[in-house]
Amino acid sequence: MKELKDRIRRDGIIRAGNVLKVDSFLNHQMDIQLFEAIGQEFKRRFSYAEINKILTIEASGIGIACVVAQSFHVPVVFAKKTQTKNISGEVYTTKVESYTHGRIYDVIVSREFLGKGDKVLLIDDFLANGKALEGLTKLVKDSGAELVGAGIVIEKGFQIGGRMLREQGIRVESLAIVDSMDEATGEIVFRE
Amino acid sequence: MKELKDRIRRDGIIRAGNVLKVDSFLNHQMDIQLFEAIGQEFKRRFSYAEINKILTIEASGIGIACVVAQSFHVPVVFAKKTQTKNISGEVYTTKVESYTHGRIYDVIVSREFLGKGDKVLLIDDFLANGKALEGLTKLVKDSGAELVGAGIVIEKGFQIGGRMLREQGIRVESLAIVDSMDEATGEIVFRE
Repeated sequence: MKELKDRIRRDGIIRAGNVLKVDSFLNHQMDIQLFEAIGQEFKRRFSYAEINKILTIEASGIGIACVVAQSFHVPVVFAKKTQTKNISGEVYTTKVESYTHGRIYDVIVSREFLGKGDKVLLIDDFLANGKALEGLTKLVKDSGAELVGAGIVIEKGFQIGGRMLREQGIRVESLAIVDSMDEATGEIVFRE
Repeated sequence: MKELKDRIRRDGIIRAGNVLKVDSFLNHQMDIQLFEAIGQEFKRRFSYAEINKILTIEASGIGIACVVAQSFHVPVVFAKKTQTKNISGEVYTTKVESYTHGRIYDVIVSREFLGKGDKVLLIDDFLANGKALEGLTKLVKDSGAELVGAGIVIEKGFQIGGRMLREQGIRVESLAIVDSMDEATGEIVFRE
């Protein structure tokens, strides 16, 4: 997606440790017009599929998922990272290791909102080592819902997540795949 | 907002401890069409005002804020509840006590994304004791931005937050104000 790659080149900041900061438009401040274009692009790529629910994970996936959902006319469910007293006891649960935060979360989805008959598109802002997406995939499987695929805004192609998920037969559509980036020069190489 | 009140009456569940569960359409599973109607209603109520940024707090405020932002054509910034290594060191910070989770969070916003010249509308799903909104108000004040007001989906009118914020001169627009609710009968009384 050219608009997205141009934006990453213009406003993305490369930091030590293969960190790509895109928090001016994607995951802290959010450019909603860009999100609308992202939604239209996911709709184009999954136009063949029947989808009746979008599943994402808090926090930075939620905004993107909600705007993307407008292109699909479906509700969004977001997986929560800790058990709150407002969640009913009946939940699907898994554990996800966060690369960004360096710790392990319990991730839950209420059984009421995911189950047989749901045709689920996963949406997230980043795909790196794939732990979050792997967790969401497990929740979908446990619930008896059907996993249609995953729509990712930025995939770090040099990390293992994308390959791992595709080898499992999951259709992963990433709008920008970063194959390499250079902190010193600021150069970002995207996969064709 | 009649559509919202009808939805709360139909799908809201009252639990002990003055908990109103609306997680089938507002803050776990999210009805995006309802969010669009909510956005149009906030736009109507703040039509007099110049607004160039929406500020919310993770996690359940983000989806609403992003869809509401489409009615205002402005970017969204969400305040983060813990410091991650992807956030630059330059942040505004405050502490917020969560009623739902029963603990105190550090809440941060990057200085890059909030400051002088910003005319800010706060958006959140719930207003109860007002701690989250008070924290966001402090972040706006610290940044030198202008606080235009706050748009709340559901206010618990029997808790102190709404009165406290309005007494500080903040324009708080709540689309549904619950004055009382009865766990035994399921009855909800909305303020006229």
